[in-house]
Amino acid sequence: MNDLTAFLHPRSVALVGASSDPTRVGSLPLKFLREYGYPGTIYVVNPHHQELQGYPCFPSVAEIPDTIDLMVISVNAERVLQTIQNCRLGQVRSALVLTSGYGEMGGDGGYRQQQLIEEARQRGIRICGPNSVGMANLWDGVVPTISQAFDQQFSPGGIAFISQSGALGTAVMALAAAQGIDVGYFISSGNEADWDFVDYCEALLEDSRIRIIAGYLEGVRDGRRLAQVAFRAHTQGKVLVLLKVGRSSHGAAAARSHTGALTGEDVVYQAVFDQYGIYRVFSLEQLLDVLKLLSVQSSWGTQLGIIGHSGGAGVLMTDEAERWPLSMPSTSPHLRSQLAKHLPAFAALDNPIDMTANVIFDSGVMLECFEAVLRDPAYDVAVFSVNLMWRIQDSLAQGLIALKSRNPKPFLISWIGVKESIAHQLQQSGIPTFSDPVRAIEALGRIATRPRFQPSSPQPSGSRAPCRVTWEDQALCLEGYQLPLAPYRLVHSFEEALQAANDVGFPVAMKLIADDLLHKSDGGGVFVDLVNADGLRRAWDDLSETARRYRLQGILVQRMIPEGVEVLVGGRWDRTFGAVLALGIGGIYTEILRAVDVHLAPIDLSQAHQWITSQPWSAIVMGARGQPQRDVSALSHVISNLSRLLYENQVGSVDLNPVMVGVQGQGAWVVDWRFTGEEA
Amino acid sequence: MNDLTAFLHPRSVALVGASSDPTRVGSLPLKFLREYGYPGTIYVVNPHHQELQGYPCFPSVAEIPDTIDLMVISVNAERVLQTIQNCRLGQVRSALVLTSGYGEMGGDGGYRQQQLIEEARQRGIRICGPNSVGMANLWDGVVPTISQAFDQQFSPGGIAFISQSGALGTAVMALAAAQGIDVGYFISSGNEADWDFVDYCEALLEDSRIRIIAGYLEGVRDGRRLAQVAFRAHTQGKVLVLLKVGRSSHGAAAARSHTGALTGEDVVYQAVFDQYGIYRVFSLEQLLDVLKLLSVQSSWGTQLGIIGHSGGAGVLMTDEAERWPLSMPSTSPHLRSQLAKHLPAFAALDNPIDMTANVIFDSGVMLECFEAVLRDPAYDVAVFSVNLMWRIQDSLAQGLIALKSRNPKPFLISWIGVKESIAHQLQQSGIPTFSDPVRAIEALGRIATRPRFQPSSPQPSGSRAPCRVTWEDQALCLEGYQLPLAPYRLVHSFEEALQAANDVGFPVAMKLIADDLLHKSDGGGVFVDLVNADGLRRAWDDLSETARRYRLQGILVQRMIPEGVEVLVGGRWDRTFGAVLALGIGGIYTEILRAVDVHLAPIDLSQAHQWITSQPWSAIVMGARGQPQRDVSALSHVISNLSRLLYENQVGSVDLNPVMVGVQGQGAWVVDWRFTGEEA
Repeated sequence: MNDLTAFLHPRSVALVGASSDPTRVGSLPLKFLREYGYPGTIYVVNPHHQELQGYPCFPSVAEIPDTIDLMVISVNAERVLQTIQNCRLGQVRSALVLTSGYGEMGGDGGYRQQQLIEEARQRGIRICGPNSVGMANLWDGVVPTISQAFDQQFSPGGIAFISQSGALGTAVMALAAAQGIDVGYFISSGNEADWDFVDYCEALLEDSRIRIIAGYLEGVRDGRRLAQVAFRAHTQGKVLVLLKVGRSSHGAAAARSHTGALTGEDVVYQAVFDQYGIYRVFSLEQLLDVLKLLSVQSSWGTQLGIIGHSGGAGVLMTDEAERWPLSMPSTSPHLRSQLAKHLPAFAALDNPIDMTANVIFDSGVMLECFEAVLRDPAYDVAVFSVNLMWRIQDSLAQGLIALKSRNPKPFLISWIGVKESIAHQLQQSGIPTFSDPVRAIEALGRIATRPRFQPSSPQPSGSRAPCRVTWEDQALCLEGYQLPLAPYRLVHSFEEALQAANDVGFPVAMKLIADDLLHKSDGGGVFVDLVNADGLRRAWDDLSETARRYRLQGILVQRMIPEGVEVLVGGRWDRTFGAVLALGIGGIYTEILRAVDVHLAPIDLSQAHQWITSQPWSAIVMGARGQPQRDVSALSHVISNLSRLLYENQVGSVDLNPVMVGVQGQGAWVVDWRFTGEEA
Repeated sequence: MNDLTAFLHPRSVALVGASSDPTRVGSLPLKFLREYGYPGTIYVVNPHHQELQGYPCFPSVAEIPDTIDLMVISVNAERVLQTIQNCRLGQVRSALVLTSGYGEMGGDGGYRQQQLIEEARQRGIRICGPNSVGMANLWDGVVPTISQAFDQQFSPGGIAFISQSGALGTAVMALAAAQGIDVGYFISSGNEADWDFVDYCEALLEDSRIRIIAGYLEGVRDGRRLAQVAFRAHTQGKVLVLLKVGRSSHGAAAARSHTGALTGEDVVYQAVFDQYGIYRVFSLEQLLDVLKLLSVQSSWGTQLGIIGHSGGAGVLMTDEAERWPLSMPSTSPHLRSQLAKHLPAFAALDNPIDMTANVIFDSGVMLECFEAVLRDPAYDVAVFSVNLMWRIQDSLAQGLIALKSRNPKPFLISWIGVKESIAHQLQQSGIPTFSDPVRAIEALGRIATRPRFQPSSPQPSGSRAPCRVTWEDQALCLEGYQLPLAPYRLVHSFEEALQAANDVGFPVAMKLIADDLLHKSDGGGVFVDLVNADGLRRAWDDLSETARRYRLQGILVQRMIPEGVEVLVGGRWDRTFGAVLALGIGGIYTEILRAVDVHLAPIDLSQAHQWITSQPWSAIVMGARGQPQRDVSALSHVISNLSRLLYENQVGSVDLNPVMVGVQGQGAWVVDWRFTGEEA
């Protein structure tokens, strides 16, 4: 189903709607196929011409006496359907639909898109688009696109770039080329009516010439497939770098109106990116900065040796390095003595090394000092920091290229005010060059940050059993998954309440259970620490009064659980990622501090334990400042059991809050919870 | 003392060490003074020449038959002192010392610097530097600098730029000019042996041509003077934009080694910046981005209307806008109908408006649509977003400049891949142009974020009374400032303990008070909830045993304070800012969540109240989720009273933790505290 060979490596291309007017975009696919030396067969379909740019024209695809691997369609939206219908059965394997006016415009565009896909499916034609600006396989000269950025002759490289925005994708191609970053594939996925972002990722992972899959992403349909692709990339030593947008609620709405993509909730994307080692960036500049480094080599170290002629730039880089898992080992006595030979007495030899302004006319001295840093085994990345240098820029660049050729260790340049042509030349020689010192270190930092967990392949979303939602059904459901509820009875009279309190044991709490009372503590419907029948009576009378305002299911008598650390364990069904878990500080702090982390379900005991210990607040349960060690093992069971419940049942969301975590050996108890229905 | 007139507006300049060799930096001050048309008198001092570039040479300053407003020194470090000594008493008013090899190099450099300052002081000469790369008053043609960046002819503008790094400062000047941002003053403050960063800020605020004071800052000596300058700037409608470095511990060390500046703790700087409306940036790019906007006008709105031909760029900007106090009002029906006239049916008319790729050859249509957005009263800033556009860049730029001339409303451009010359031309026409959509919105966001509080001028640090530090002295000191300690006695026998418990009232807590037991809960030295004499006895026996391990001051018997919200109120003496306060969540969460905010002391009751309500966790004390409203007024008293204690006494630091805040009307009680000595 996902074989994109015909699309990515077509032996034959049919161009439908190719224009004879070179000022119109319809003329561009043919132009680029020729300019990039496409080696397969090109057929031009145009009923109004006998011949176009030297190619004989066919009145329709059906009349081409050949099978077509890739049909490129740029006719008006009204004529696209007919174009598909006119193909012979089995004749065409894939189509790239450049035409706009489908799902992205709302209204009847969605219907037209549906029709298009159905007709194509009947004829066995897979679709890229509609509303795509085209694709480019630069390795093999396949460049059917209407993007003028390809007027420049791009050279192929190890990056595949997939974009859910045509205009932005085109801009990235142009900017990358200007900076000397070579991209091998470009795919504008358009409305993704058939093949989607993840399909392209999967297919491009199979190409051994591709080491990096980069993308502009608004959303995927099946988040778990994306996670699986990331896992597979990881096992192959390849990486994904995604400019994932839709961080904000408003942004998500804009993304929807743009391509009709379903934008899943961003925090889940972020958690999955972290867990499966997908590099995330938030702007075009960040994307290009990270690609600049990764296109030279797949991994960069974290021990930085920084040398330059501006102490200020050194301080900026030091500040930035501390925001990331990067360190700056101090200068060894050996290195110090080597540097001292070349530098004035007032140079600062601590890392970051400040050669001072005295050296700025002498590229020879600067390069000798830099090479000393580069060769020092304490550093696995060297950073050379300069400003302006316009008078000696060429000799400096030549010197750096020579230095690169005789030193295997990676290095990069922070060059404030660097000319684009110099940066391009250095990048093409394997020397990433940044025009801002902070951005140079930030890019290293992003690469050093991956990943939080040793990844394992995620399970697919799977099917789920229905789960009913009255309070007692919920309690049974939770108990069915060995979730330890504080002992309770649901009662309807004072006599029942007293019996229940004796059964579960004083002291008890009493709470109203009502359909229309979400936060029990909001409505005054809770009494705690009832130690005997008298207290129970008074509480009963008060609750019975309050109960009149609500649609009552009953009154809960629940054993008081001794004070412990209050934790929230919850989860929900995400339409993109399926069952996801949430973990955070519980009780009144949950909503105020918003310190909630997310993880795909299911999760096993050891993963749950690891997840707890990776939380910023883990010291609270691990024991700190005289606090006892809490029963983290019991909490792990709660997390793991709830994860199976969420994964196996049709539940919108569940919050166990608080889960009261006792000291080691005393368990973790679910004191309160809240279910919501499907797709909360 | 702080009259920099002679330095900034000299009527006469003496150049000491001016080189005749045009390839040496010593030749540059004279070259630039001439090129920029300095209108005052220039004297050249050089014992080895009769004449230099047409100027007669004097063998020493003393032989110049004139008073000198500014003496520029670029001789070797060995000869600087003599140069000063050679001046006639009262002859020279200020000196710019370009020579390096002083405090910044450590060792005897610090001594040499001290000597220099003393000699200068004896002769009434104020000093800029040493280790400065020079200054430039471009408004008046005063350009004594050794920075080659001034080879370009800069034109003056409303920005003054002060830099504690010469090389970085020079680079900023060059980058600003390349982007069309005009700077009026440049000062490289060097080692600040005499005049410091704040002195220059104060002086430049007096120049009516200057609206923006920008700077690269590693640290100031007196933080409160910086705050006062910011306050004065605010009252004059001027702004400060500072690239303050030294965020990290490591970065702070690097800053120290660089100029010998004292880098205060960064979190206090940040708090003061927030309170006094200083814009803070973290990289050169952020600095230039913010200046790009502010140099066009001092304030920008927050209601954005965004229009472009790339939906993807629109989504990126929407995402970024949500990180800041910016909003994007939706498209009105009127605007919608205006746009619909020009745009295809599949254009997205919601804000951000996507004109689609169909318009990219037609700058006329794009500009008409943009003007419609610009004129819509719902927006106070319009953003025009384009990519590449290289084929029509000139006509587009001309159209935008025409549009600017007939519309007063501010707008800016996000232009991915813009050529530098086009961006420069637009900036000079008052149209800020950014090459990255995210950075455009980020710059607007930074400007929209200022300030948190209505500022009032900070009090100077003042002098402080000595404060002794035994536990009982501390308790008396706290009580002297009306800080409500939970009722207590310090006892030394069980009989005393029992009497004390009866006096303060059961239930009580007992705690060891010992010099060497910082966190009481760490050492097992605490018993709580003792309800009667039996409990007290058992606790006493246990504590007496534990007490042997410590240097005991006594055993504390303290009344139990009912459960409340635990808050930390603390503070310390900062060597840069004097007394500063800290406020955060108390108890075990303090160190784990690190949610601590900082404020200059003293603080009055109403400021304290406002400060509490601005905390991210304020809902916990203001009442939320059925939690009662807490006694915020009592907490405000604690904060305000502690602020006076810190301001008036020689205390290193005080932590009141926890302050137990009861429900409304029940007060706030100091349950535990910790003092440290001077300069903690």
